Order: sequence, then C-alpha cells, then structure tokens
Amino acid sequence: MADPWQECMDYAVTLARKAGEIIRGALKEEISVMTKSSPVDLVTETDQKVENFIISLIKEKYPSHSFIGEESVAAGQGSILTDNPTWIIDPIDGTTNFVHRFPFVAVSIGFVVNKKIEFGIVYSCVEDKMYTARKGKGAFCNGQKLQVSGQEDITKSLLVTELGSNRDPETIKIILSNMERLLSIPIHGIRAVGTAAVNMCLVATGGADAYYEMGIHCWDMAGAGIVVTEAGGVLLDVSGGPFDLMSRRIIAASSRAIGERIAKALQIIPLQRDDATN
Amino acid sequence: MADPWQECMDYAVTLARKAGEIIRGALKEEISVMTKSSPVDLVTETDQKVENFIISLIKEKYPSHSFIGEESVAAGQGSILTDNPTWIIDPIDGTTNFVHRFPFVAVSIGFVVNKKIEFGIVYSCVEDKMYTARKGKGAFCNGQKLQVSGQEDITKSLLVTELGSNRDPETIKIILSNMERLLSIPIHGIRAVGTAAVNMCLVATGGADAYYEMGIHCWDMAGAGIVVTEAGGVLLDVSGGPFDLMSRRIIAASSRAIGERIAKALQIIPLQRDDATN
Repeated sequence: MADPWQECMDYAVTLARKAGEIIRGALKEEISVMTKSSPVDLVTETDQKVENFIISLIKEKYPSHSFIGEESVAAGQGSILTDNPTWIIDPIDGTTNFVHRFPFVAVSIGFVVNKKIEFGIVYSCVEDKMYTARKGKGAFCNGQKLQVSGQEDITKSLLVTELGSNRDPETIKIILSNMERLLSIPIHGIRAVGTAAVNMCLVATGGADAYYEMGIHCWDMAGAGIVVTEAGGVLLDVSGGPFDLMSRRIIAASSRAIGERIAKALQIIPLQRDDATN
Repeated sequence: MADPWQECMDYAVTLARKAGEIIRGALKEEISVMTKSSPVDLVTETDQKVENFIISLIKEKYPSHSFIGEESVAAGQGSILTDNPTWIIDPIDGTTNFVHRFPFVAVSIGFVVNKKIEFGIVYSCVEDKMYTARKGKGAFCNGQKLQVSGQEDITKSLLVTELGSNRDPETIKIILSNMERLLSIPIHGIRAVGTAAVNMCLVATGGADAYYEMGIHCWDMAGAGIVVTEAGGVLLDVSGGPFDLMSRRIIAASSRAIGERIAKALQIIPLQRDDATN
C-alpha cells in the first residue's frame, strides 16, 4: 500500500527549504524586533511572514487539514490538538539566534494524525542541514541516516538544554539548580545552541546524549521529536512518564536509561499546557 | 617594510588546516578517552598526536622559537611566557565535543612576541571555518572580514560562556550564580557551544555580543583573542581591568560598555595562573 502521507512529507521538505531561503535572505537585511511574553521573548516580521508563507501554501493543497503555528497562536488562534491531520509549525525556531545572527536557526514542521507524529522536518537553514524523519522509516540529515549514541551511562554523557526566555526569578533558580544537580552526578557537560529543534537533532546525530527542557511548546518539539525516535532515541516526560506533545516539557534521550536518570534529577517547573482552554 | 611574521602566519594556517584533516579523520574512527584533572577533563591520543604534529613542524622551521602547548604542559613542560617569539597551541579546543562528535572542534594557534599577540588562527574543522587575524590587519573567516556587533546595551545582548570541566561544588555554584545574575539583568540569552575559541570567534562574527569564562588557559585564548580585537572587540579581565593572557580568565566583548557591565556582575573564582611556578 502506498504511504498516505509521503506526498505531504515531500511537500513539507520543499516548503521548509523555501522558508529557509527567505530566512537566509532576511539575515542579510536589517531585522526589526518586537517582544511577546517578556522583554526577552522576541519575534520579528520574518517569523510571521514565513509562517504565513508555509500555512497558506499547505492550506491551498490540503484545505481539510488543521494547523497549529507559533505565530498564529500568538495572534489568538487556538492550539487544541484533534485527530484531524494537523501541521504543527515553528517558522523560526531560535528567533533570538535569528535576531543576533547566531548561526542556528531552524524551520520546524511536524505532521500529526490521530495525535501521533507521522513525520517531522527540521531545516537548520544557516548550516543548510535538512533533518527529516518518517514514522517507521528512519531519520536522515541531508540524506544521511542518523543514529543516536545509545549511551546509557549518565556519567559519560553530554547534554543539551537551554536557559529559556522566562526571566521569573523562581523559574531561573529551578533551571540553574537542575543544571547543578546534573553537573554534580557528574556528567561530561552541557551545551546550548539556542534552538530546541536543533538541540534535539544533535541528539539524533549522536553528537549529544540527551536534551531536556521545560517551557517550550508543541511547535518546538513536533518536527524534531520524530527525528530523535526514528534515530533510535526515546522521548519521555520530565517526570520519567510518557511524553505528551502538548505538555510543554520533554526529555529526548539516546537511551531510556539516560532519560530516566535525567528525570530523576529534575525539579519540575509548573507550566500551563499548550492546550489549556482558559 | 615587510611584515616580519607574515611567513609564520601563513605557515600556521597551513598547519591548522592539516591538523583539522587529522581531526576529521579521527572522528570517523573509534575514540579512546583518558582523563586529566578530573573524571570529566578528557584527553585523547588525537590531542597529543595533533600537538606533536604541529610543534615538530614549527620547530623544524623556527628552531629558536618557544612553545606552550596544552598537551606538552600536561606532560610536565612549563608555561612561562617570555619575550621570545612563542607559539601557543591548543591542538583540539573542545576535546569533550570531539569525544562526543559534537560538531565544534577547533585547532587554535596563537603567536606572541614580547608578550603581545601578533596573530591568531582558529580552525573550526568540522564546520570548515578558518578564522585568522594579524595585528593591525583585521580578522577574517574563510577570507570574509569580521566585525563585532558593537552592541553596548547589555539588556539586548546574547552571551556565550561554558559550564567548564571543574566539578568542585563551590566552583559550580559560582558559575551558575554568575549566569543567574546576568540572566536577571535581563539579557537575551546565553549560549555554549563547548569550545572557548569558537565561542570567541562567534563574538568576532557579531553572532554573540560577549564571551566570558574563568578556568580556561592561555592556549584557549591566544588564537581567538586577537580574532576578537581585530574584529573591533575588546578583551578585559573578569575584574574589568586589563586582560592578562596567563590569568586563566577573560571577557571578550563587542564593546567596552558590555564587557564592563559583565565584569560588574561576575563573582570571581580563585584560580592558579598558567605561569604559577610552585
């Protein structure tokens, strides 16, 4: 039987590449910056332009599909995940990097049917790295098959995470105290390139052994999540339980053992879910 | 008058490129890891092999010059900086990255005469980015001229630093508390790619507004330090005073204003200097 979603995936790759071209072009111009939830939660006209570009072209081709896009949600649209085929889009993952021209900026597209991720695309457009994964068919970067490290020993691990854009003093304290607990195990180190999607793809390549974060959104995880699992990794909730795409929290690890050890170390930050309705 | 050190600089670029080839080759093989000062201070045979390769070829051509190399010092050689022309070499800056195949690994060569850096080379060999700077002649990446951001407003800044390889609980606490003070100003964010030299080169490109760290060594700073200053940036001590190559501490900033503001926020970690003689 033909793969019912392969055509959608091919289209997503084409759109992500074109979106990356728009972003690379914008990096050569002056960037004007606005703020969202806090003075350090940044957005630019390019975020909105790229999201409109991607969603309008998909809608034309697949009018019955649903959409959850970072900038559409910021503009007041809902983010309730149904069983309908749903495109979950972050036009620029790493907007702060984009604003500073720090060279990790990704277009992220996840495609979810019956609440399961069917495929994911992460295009790290400054590096020109196209990460793709189709359920059951493996993960790739520029056509090369990816495999997680498989590391199970936390004391030999290199982790990726972020300090985030929340500047609430209590939240900062928990984020740093979680790093302290992990460093003290000890672990080899912690890296942060400034985008959730690229951090997760680095786990998929084997370059890092796990990524964890709280406070991110479904559009930061939907594209890269399946890249990690199709490269042999696991997704967990930060409690160690099953991963929930709408929960705003994730551990993406090269092995269940490392994921669970990280979960054991983490103090949890209270967060409102992406699909909260109040 | 001809530049007396241009020939040395050209030779350094050639050697750095060849060293990068050796490193890229080693990344395809199995990597066996040893430890130095702590269970997370890593070294490999490739570090030693690349340093021997670089130093032996320079010694052949410039037998009267002096050398300070990370692995030679680890093997017991001194690191006292004299007025003699001195090559300061880190064969692999980012050894932990190298071990994990996290894609930022640099060959760093600094050349110092009368205790002043004359030129610096940082070859980020997985990315294939060759950063070069000659005193008074500008900084370049793959031939393209570099310019720092010039940002003076700390609240609009993106910083780079590292969590380091010291696992002493008091040191970890100071490192994290310094991050907390900076995040709370607030700043846009903090990134960490795992090598001092590449972090500093990112400041030189304008992608980050400043780098600071305590606990690194002269071989982590000598190559990239002049890349920053020749791109229009400034080097300061973490106290805000003049930068000292042997002090194991640095702020490399896109402007004096940002550098001094960071210095004001930092609690200082007590460290033994690179040229301590006990």
